[in-house]
Amino acid sequence: MSSHWEDFFASHLPPSDFEDNRTLLKEFCERHNQDNQQIILITSGGTTVPLEHNTVRFVDNFSAGTRGAASAEYFLDHDCVVIFLHRHKSLEPFTRHFTGLQFMDMLELQEDGQNTTITVKPDSVDVVAPILKRYKASHDTGKILYVNFTTLSDYFWLLRAACECLADYGARAILYLAAAVSDFYIPSSEMPTHKMQSEAGAPTISLKLVPKLLAPLVNLWIPQAFVVSFKLETDENLLITKCRDALKKYKHKLVIGNILQTRRNKVVFVSPENSYEISLTREQVLNGMEIESQIVSNVISCHSHFLKTNY
Amino acid sequence: MSSHWEDFFASHLPPSDFEDNRTLLKEFCERHNQDNQQIILITSGGTTVPLEHNTVRFVDNFSAGTRGAASAEYFLDHDCVVIFLHRHKSLEPFTRHFTGLQFMDMLELQEDGQNTTITVKPDSVDVVAPILKRYKASHDTGKILYVNFTTLSDYFWLLRAACECLADYGARAILYLAAAVSDFYIPSSEMPTHKMQSEAGAPTISLKLVPKLLAPLVNLWIPQAFVVSFKLETDENLLITKCRDALKKYKHKLVIGNILQTRRNKVVFVSPENSYEISLTREQVLNGMEIESQIVSNVISCHSHFLKTNY
Repeated sequence: MSSHWEDFFASHLPPSDFEDNRTLLKEFCERHNQDNQQIILITSGGTTVPLEHNTVRFVDNFSAGTRGAASAEYFLDHDCVVIFLHRHKSLEPFTRHFTGLQFMDMLELQEDGQNTTITVKPDSVDVVAPILKRYKASHDTGKILYVNFTTLSDYFWLLRAACECLADYGARAILYLAAAVSDFYIPSSEMPTHKMQSEAGAPTISLKLVPKLLAPLVNLWIPQAFVVSFKLETDENLLITKCRDALKKYKHKLVIGNILQTRRNKVVFVSPENSYEISLTREQVLNGMEIESQIVSNVISCHSHFLKTNY
Repeated sequence: MSSHWEDFFASHLPPSDFEDNRTLLKEFCERHNQDNQQIILITSGGTTVPLEHNTVRFVDNFSAGTRGAASAEYFLDHDCVVIFLHRHKSLEPFTRHFTGLQFMDMLELQEDGQNTTITVKPDSVDVVAPILKRYKASHDTGKILYVNFTTLSDYFWLLRAACECLADYGARAILYLAAAVSDFYIPSSEMPTHKMQSEAGAPTISLKLVPKLLAPLVNLWIPQAFVVSFKLETDENLLITKCRDALKKYKHKLVIGNILQTRRNKVVFVSPENSYEISLTREQVLNGMEIESQIVSNVISCHSHFLKTNY
């Protein structure tokens, strides 16, 4: 049963842009580390597990990245500094509100001789302006850093590097681990080099358990931080038990549980002391409120309470 | 060996928005079916194969959708009418040139009392204007229809429906099958209902071969059309042979072969009569030329030749 995290790092090379990202992370953390500044590392989106070395096929986890991207906006609204470690092409804060086609449709071209201008159509300004303001407020002050991953192994390397950079923040660091990380992978040594040929018949894929990074993360990499993990289940009967099992096993601070089908309107907060549900009323949903605004407020108060009682 | 396409349709329900899409396809095809109008069905992006009924995990095929999205632009430039049947969230014509963050960064907010306007920054206008013009030309005249899929089964249902709507075009229809369709799937009957639990140990997944739709497509659904398929390989030695095998097996008109690592600069056209390579020079690449502009010109001349010699 060799599913240890150290073996995984030993048998998977860091992504090719790893050193660049490590430098960005280090500089970002140092620049903002002053006074009582809180910092949030958000992980978001799913990881992939290649089935071939020259990757054509991979196993992916369902996750658009809505939870992480929406939460990033609300953490920024609360004056936090945010590292947004997300799956390449998953949803991002602010831009998530528009598709590319919506963007194009909002634009209007004016040609006046040599002079071409492009404006946002008046009837779209009301929608875009408030989002653009929040976007500029966070970006102009450099309060958010975007780092992206695709494979499980990219994620492993970047998460560890981020934790190392965050260690100086001690208890002021919040880890908000919303990414949907693969539970299974195919070891490098058992992977074919080329695309599997369908002529060879249908293959059987033997998967291996992915080592859980929460263990070294909590025990070794960043022991003082306020670590929040997520549990996604499809079977309601298993949810709270599984959240509690995770807390017992990894000894972190908070698990936020959710059921695939109802995750947009309801979550459960499970801490070592208690558990309670957070949900939106029908009216709140109709008014466009997002559950992430409530989740983030609650995480911030749990964190404040944690700081007061422990330091 | 029950891998027949009819069994697949019989055991997979159509996607929930299937009837809406079928109506859109029908209306679009009828509206444009006049004179000598050519119509192109482009399929683009990868299909997913769920591993669970309440899908958390799935097997995906690597494909950003660049080939299909870029080709759509060039077909529109050639005055063709385009059905863009693509994987949800894969690249789309025109919008593919910008990420969401790039869009936000290009915008500038002016507030003058009650009056808010948003413009594209002058230094971005040169980049956006030509793309926006081409976009508006195609969209204002309704020359492109977007239909999207996610799973293999969505793709099957929509492709067949599109073929049925295109049948009236006869030889004026081009099918440009650039989507990366899964070769393997897990039969519905062998799929667990809930998320696989990692406590149960690492699973072994037995896959089944996906029936090839090219066979009924060419023989039954749209026998007169000019059908172009793509072959992506990672092993250069297999490429031409595999293209030729596909032509012999399915008896369509053209296979465009490409190697994963060089697909942006080089492809090979394989027809029953001959085969030739199309590639970009280093200079063309540096000037920003895309191989899809060449592929599309060549497909259009092959199609013209086909019309002349057959009708």
